[in-house]
Formats: sequence, C-alpha cells, structure tokens
Amino acid sequence: MKRTVAAVAVVVSGWAVAAVAQPIVLRDMGSFHVGGEPFVVSGEPVKEVKFTANGVPLKIDPNGTYMVGQMYVQYFIPEPRKGAVPLLMWHGGGLTGVTYETTPDGRPGWLNDFLRKGWAVYNSDAVERGRSGWPATAKPVWKGDPVLVTAANAYERFRIGGAGSWSEDPAQRKLLPGNQFPADQIWQFSRQFVPRWITTDEPTLKAYLQLVDKVCPCVLLVHSQAGKFGFQAAQARPDKIRAVVAVEPAEVGDEDKEKIAALKSVPALMVYGDYIEQDSRWPAIRAKGARFAQAVREAGGQVDEVDLPKVGIKGNSHMVMMDKNNLEVSALINEWLAKRGLYR
Amino acid sequence: MKRTVAAVAVVVSGWAVAAVAQPIVLRDMGSFHVGGEPFVVSGEPVKEVKFTANGVPLKIDPNGTYMVGQMYVQYFIPEPRKGAVPLLMWHGGGLTGVTYETTPDGRPGWLNDFLRKGWAVYNSDAVERGRSGWPATAKPVWKGDPVLVTAANAYERFRIGGAGSWSEDPAQRKLLPGNQFPADQIWQFSRQFVPRWITTDEPTLKAYLQLVDKVCPCVLLVHSQAGKFGFQAAQARPDKIRAVVAVEPAEVGDEDKEKIAALKSVPALMVYGDYIEQDSRWPAIRAKGARFAQAVREAGGQVDEVDLPKVGIKGNSHMVMMDKNNLEVSALINEWLAKRGLYR
Repeated sequence: MKRTVAAVAVVVSGWAVAAVAQPIVLRDMGSFHVGGEPFVVSGEPVKEVKFTANGVPLKIDPNGTYMVGQMYVQYFIPEPRKGAVPLLMWHGGGLTGVTYETTPDGRPGWLNDFLRKGWAVYNSDAVERGRSGWPATAKPVWKGDPVLVTAANAYERFRIGGAGSWSEDPAQRKLLPGNQFPADQIWQFSRQFVPRWITTDEPTLKAYLQLVDKVCPCVLLVHSQAGKFGFQAAQARPDKIRAVVAVEPAEVGDEDKEKIAALKSVPALMVYGDYIEQDSRWPAIRAKGARFAQAVREAGGQVDEVDLPKVGIKGNSHMVMMDKNNLEVSALINEWLAKRGLYR
Repeated sequence: MKRTVAAVAVVVSGWAVAAVAQPIVLRDMGSFHVGGEPFVVSGEPVKEVKFTANGVPLKIDPNGTYMVGQMYVQYFIPEPRKGAVPLLMWHGGGLTGVTYETTPDGRPGWLNDFLRKGWAVYNSDAVERGRSGWPATAKPVWKGDPVLVTAANAYERFRIGGAGSWSEDPAQRKLLPGNQFPADQIWQFSRQFVPRWITTDEPTLKAYLQLVDKVCPCVLLVHSQAGKFGFQAAQARPDKIRAVVAVEPAEVGDEDKEKIAALKSVPALMVYGDYIEQDSRWPAIRAKGARFAQAVREAGGQVDEVDLPKVGIKGNSHMVMMDKNNLEVSALINEWLAKRGLYR
C-alpha cells in the first residue's frame, strides 16, 4: 500500500517537473517607456552633492526639465503565438508588474503561465510605480503624499486574514479558513509594495491609452485599482480592446450612458475571489461591479461575472494571481478567451 | 553599379534580421526580492484615504511594520548555457535594471545580448530604485532627500555632450563629435531616470551581498555607481565572485591593504569610454580607478584596464550599454570572460 502511494507521488512529481522544464521560447523580449510630459522647475538653488562618500563632488542644479508621468512596459513575444492579440497585464494599487511574475513563495505567476500558453505579454508598471519612476522634484508635480501600506494592512484588506486578523506574531495571525494565499510568505509579498499617490488617475490613464495606441488591438488583464483603468481604456478605445478581463476590480469604468454604450462591442469577464460577504468593504465593491456589468448588458454588451467560489474554486484572496490555485484561475480565464475566438 | 549596392544592402539587412530572429530559449525566468528589514512606525495618526475618486473610503493606519531596504531581481536562464556561472548585472545611480534592457532608440541591450550568448542573467534594481520600492513612511528611514536629475544633467555629465552642451532646443545641443549615444532619444532615456538617495550605500551593499549569497558563484557586470558595490562585494565574497567587469566605474572598492589583497583571486576588467580627458570630473575618476587597479596588481591580482578609444572603439559615452556600438563592447567583454575560462 505504501509502495503504491510512493509510485503515485513519483508520477505526479515527474509531471510537475516536465511541465516546468518545457522551455519558454521567445521571438523577442524588451522594454520601453510610453507617455510622460516635460515638467519644468525654476528658481531653486544649486546644490553640491557627493554621490558616493569618497566621490568627486558635483554641483546639481535642480532647475530644468524633467520627464514625469511616463510608464514602463516590459514585453515578451513567445513562439509560437496562440493568443490572437497581445495580452496587456495591468497591476493594482501600491504594487508593480511584479504582481504577475513569480509568486511570493516562488511558484510561476501568470506572466510565465500566459507566455507558456502562447500569449505575447506586455507587463507594465503604472505611472509613478516601480520602473516608471516618480518625480522627486523640488516642486511637487501631483497633490498629496504617496501612501505605502504595512504588511498588516495588506493582510487584512486583501482578504488573506480579514479585519483584525493581523498579529506581528505569525502564530497569532488568523488566516481566513481555507485561504489559498501563501500567507507564510507575507513578508516576501510586502517586499513588492511600492508607494502610490492617490491623485494620479489622470496621468495613469493617459499613459495606458498611449500604450494601447502603440501595441493594440489587444486583450486587457487588469487587477484591483486597474479595473478602473481597464474599463476606461476600453470605453475610450473600444475598437482596440478585444476583451477586458478584470480580476477583483476595486473600481470599474465610467457610468454615464454613452460610456456604458461604448462597451457593447467589448466582451468582459469579471473574476472575484472568496470571503467577500464577510469583508467590511468588498460587499460594496462587488455590488458596484455587478451594477456596472448589468448596465453594460442592458446596453447590449457581454459581461460575464464569475464569483470563483460559485464555480467550485475556493479560498481565493484579493491576490488571485499569487494564490496557490493561481493556475486554475488562469486556465478559467484562458478558456473564456478561447470561447471568444481570441485563443487558437 | 547601383544594382550591386542594392544587393549588398539586402544581404546585410537579411543577416541583421536573421540575427534578431534567432529565438531566445529560456529554461526559466522569474523574479524575487532579497534582503530588506522590518521598519516600525508608531505614534502617527490614522488617515482616511479614498484610493479612487469614487472608491469606498478606507482608514489607513500608518503605524506598523514596513519592509525597507529590499532589492528586486529578475532572472532569465537560457538554454543551452554557455556562461560557466550566472552573470549579475548591477546598474548605476539614478537608474534601474532597465539600463541593460532595450536601448532608448529600441535596439537590443546587453540583457538580450548576453542571454543570446548563453549567459544566465540576474538583472536587479538597486535598493530604493525601481521595483525595489522606497520607504514613503511617516518617519524617514534614511537621511536626506532623494535626488532626481534633469535630462540636461545626464546629457552633460554622462559625456553625451559635455559641460555646457545642453540646450532645450535640440538643434542647439552640442553632441561630442562622433558620440555613439542615441542622443536624439535623450527624452526616452530620461524616462528611465528614478530618484536616488545618496545615503543608502550601506543597505544597498547589504542587499547585493544577500543576492551573491543566494545565487553565486557568478560574474558581476557593474556600471558607474555600482563599480563600488561590485568591487566591495568581491572583497567581501572573493570565493563567490569569479570575475568583476566594471563598466565606467564611478567608484571602486575599499582601498585598505587587506581589502585590496582580498581581490587577488578575482580577475577584473575595467572598461572606460571616450572623451574622458576633456571632462571636468572624469579624469579624477579615471585616475582613481587606475590607482585601485595598480594596487590590486601589486597585491598579486589581475586587473585589465581597457580605455575603449585605445583599442579602436571610439565615441562611447558613459552609457556604453546603450551606445550605437554597444554590441561591439559586449563582444569585447565576452571575449575577456572566455579567456578566463568563464565562457565555453
């Protein structure tokens, strides 16, 4: 009996290794920045700066022209391609494109998974996040201060634990029962956090539209804060967006009649994780998503809402792409895209 | 006669396309963060924040534990591998790992080039740069303010133009004669600039050493500010660093006798571009590099200094990996590594 169990284990493990060992073949990969605008600073005093402790001193004139509001994009073009158009991955607030890379516990993320499936992927860092840079200029570009969150905040707000679940002592933390997030790697996850302004929606959408104009037609795969940008981009460029996949959208698109009608030719999939009913904020966010979906359907559009627990996929946090069952959810998304003729 | 010229052009163009079209085959790719430390903020008032204009309001407690000082690393493992060990790319100040990706004018950078050559590459964003994040905490972690430079500053300081060469009017800018930097893309280059603290050498070196301990033995390929970190890492871990390639190092390693002696088993290549003599700062930086190299040689080490103009490679700016002849310089570096038995 023990022998049989061992044999099964070997087979499973062998399959897993084979799946990982399949190489990723890229016709090309690279990066670029889109968007941004000149920002002029004047009337500030010149500073003397030593860039290293023993370095040669240097006068830095803070006056002059900076580029602000640009966005970093990294692309991977696999061979052969099975996605009908490129897939653009837009991350959520306080994070970067790292969201879609290796998970905090070292498993393949959705970037590798969709590449292996044959999608050309453009993974970006939103304006003022990560490799997009931010304006540490002598005069501020945007209103307000950037916000960085604690590990505790993410643990509670991303439905890993829930309100009051955090403790600095790992043994005292209350994980939501059955949660699929690799919660023992919460500190590794928190290493991915970057500051965010809350006043930069306008330059952010502008840069996303410049990306759309550069590389689309395409499919948008958006998460959390980017739910807003994904639907707004589709409303602004319905001819260029073949589908929107909104994963746990924290916000949706514009709700005026004309903007809703613009989405009637853009099929959309909204995917939500588990534990929403028991959260303090997510029932309202989910209800708003449902109203938006219904309004688009009433205007003749196609919006599918998938609450993962209702289709038997349980335990997902807000960070679905990092959860232990992340590849189960990406398979569901890919199947939806295939049904719409976007994957061959 | 015209016919012949056209035929040659087709052949050259065909070869170029073939070279680019050769796929990059990856056994794996992914990312992780190394290092970082908990940083506790306490005694600050709770803020109410709306993350989106119409979003559900949220109380943000700025008190708690943040992770600061971590470093982002993206890796690509090609198949087959020809580099004997992984190649770690460390960028210079005010920039990120984007330094080694596609050039500002859209040509392949050294990341793609070394991958195509068969090197496993780990390309990182230094502490507080890019995807490593930065501590926008209510209480400061490091002394001083971050510095962001203008396009003008880079144009003059990176020996693209030179002192006084910048003008907001492109037609009035004075490019150094024969300069290989894609100067018409100076604004695209400036989109890559990120703020930098000048007080973070210690946490930066610490994170680099954590990376070395995780993935080496390896070769370090370092640029500008990272010249210091590359040599210091080799001085701290001489058993793990097979070679240091320092491209335009703005700083070098520690100069005390014991630290110099630690480098006797670590071969090093120092590569410098053009226009150094006529610059206001670079003659002193170059002389310091020469003194350091000589000290290591006197301790029994091997350091090769290459001033590119002296070997017939002319017109290089400080950003050698972005210059139009970037692949000529990477070929020189690869040949040097091959001679040391690090490339098969």
